[in-house]
Amino acid sequence: MEAGRHLGGVAVREALALDNLCTMDVHKLFAIKPGTKVRLLNFDPGDTGEFSDKNAAVAATVENVKKLAEVQLKLFAENKRALLIILQGIDTSGKDGTIRHCMSGLNPAGVTVTSFKKPTEHELDHDFLWRVHQCVPGKGEIGVFNRSHYEDVLIGKVRKLAPAAEIEARYDHINNFEQLLADSGTIVLKFFLYISKDEQKKRLQQRLEDPTKNWKFQPGDLEERKLWPDYIKAYEAALSRCSTKSAPWFVIPSDKKWFRNLAVSQAIVDTVKAMKISMPKSMLDLSAVKVV
Amino acid sequence: MEAGRHLGGVAVREALALDNLCTMDVHKLFAIKPGTKVRLLNFDPGDTGEFSDKNAAVAATVENVKKLAEVQLKLFAENKRALLIILQGIDTSGKDGTIRHCMSGLNPAGVTVTSFKKPTEHELDHDFLWRVHQCVPGKGEIGVFNRSHYEDVLIGKVRKLAPAAEIEARYDHINNFEQLLADSGTIVLKFFLYISKDEQKKRLQQRLEDPTKNWKFQPGDLEERKLWPDYIKAYEAALSRCSTKSAPWFVIPSDKKWFRNLAVSQAIVDTVKAMKISMPKSMLDLSAVKVV
Repeated sequence: MEAGRHLGGVAVREALALDNLCTMDVHKLFAIKPGTKVRLLNFDPGDTGEFSDKNAAVAATVENVKKLAEVQLKLFAENKRALLIILQGIDTSGKDGTIRHCMSGLNPAGVTVTSFKKPTEHELDHDFLWRVHQCVPGKGEIGVFNRSHYEDVLIGKVRKLAPAAEIEARYDHINNFEQLLADSGTIVLKFFLYISKDEQKKRLQQRLEDPTKNWKFQPGDLEERKLWPDYIKAYEAALSRCSTKSAPWFVIPSDKKWFRNLAVSQAIVDTVKAMKISMPKSMLDLSAVKVV
Repeated sequence: MEAGRHLGGVAVREALALDNLCTMDVHKLFAIKPGTKVRLLNFDPGDTGEFSDKNAAVAATVENVKKLAEVQLKLFAENKRALLIILQGIDTSGKDGTIRHCMSGLNPAGVTVTSFKKPTEHELDHDFLWRVHQCVPGKGEIGVFNRSHYEDVLIGKVRKLAPAAEIEARYDHINNFEQLLADSGTIVLKFFLYISKDEQKKRLQQRLEDPTKNWKFQPGDLEERKLWPDYIKAYEAALSRCSTKSAPWFVIPSDKKWFRNLAVSQAIVDTVKAMKISMPKSMLDLSAVKVV
């Protein structure tokens, strides 16, 4: 039955027997303590923690995905809480890849991934949290945001897409909104995938040179790259002002994709473990029921 | 790198080297030819085709999921066509399990699963296709419907939830709607998970007896079970009238879960193979671009 191990549901029964291939405390290492004034200069995007070996990190990531698949079924059955994972990062930082590596293996029936693009006219007719609020996960679900309301204090700030005072007010609105989600049973985890400027250059060049990656290339990415220092500043403000106890920011070193995947998956697994989700008991008296 | 094989993206590069563990022609065996008058008595819900061995079927299913993960990335990059998978079946027939087994392993960023429940007041204020239309997959996406607009000619017909003439008109509306999707580049596959009445009894009893399955038990299922012959008739009408070349119905023998999973995954893989999706070329002249 080896072959069945990786099919979500089947994996569930075996997951409890898994080892702990990664004991790294991602919260301690990479979560931003509320109130910290973040300077990204103090973080190393090339950091790989205790892992020097790619193979070991990949194995630990696979293990994490299996553990998450096991918890997912319980989360769904419990039908009380939700998990929202927010991914942010400069172009090419690996938001898509993180989702593919950390979420493939889960049952897609319980996962909603929303990729936020440039807002439509209709969306712009509303406050900046309106379109985002519609996409938060319901009870029992895992929601993933590929970009998010943070764009409104990132590109929004860098490109001056709204008056400065309006953007300034958004940090509080974001904190209030995330607190509402937390109070309603949604665990919020926010990952900033931090790459170096050199690593971005390498990845953009790959998109130009590798025919299988050409389709990913957007000329606009080069324009954004010119604003690198402004984006760093905007990220520092968001990380400093919006990392809270109930919705922490993590700065994930992401120059090494395999370490990025491991760190994100480990943070999620540690979080859901702490949620102590168990299979619910039926509220009905089933002993009296007869099937004819 | 064995450990990385099952992580969607990583699996892609290895998928082409896979064997063909299942050569069963699911279209020929289980697709309903347009115009056929379907009698479910002529189908065996316990059929397992050429497979007597559960292990072999599970291995072939895993292989199919890997193939599908490979095609998924191309479908996304191509950004031209979509795939819509519709699952219908009497209570306990295994719609959830089919999704878990056939879809876990895909990148959830490209898969949207919609479970249609009893319509809300707001939904009932619109035509029966309104809420469904909003959930069809966009270009490059895979959509899965757990129940669908067919409920409106199934429970709708059995429970007389609308005037008979209105329900009668729905078959044509459904065919027109699915033709619209097909004309817009969406491949539609519809699976009726066919179980026997005895098998349903067994599964309902399991939900009562197994504490880990108690949460799935709904007293309403027993009421629906009493209407078994009416549901069979309603399914026969839908299968007879709405299996078209561009949106075929399959009657999947589903008493054996492992065969059900294999047959559904095989039908999907055969379909996407016939789509001949390839990585798109960039429309831009990338040779002139410099990253600085």
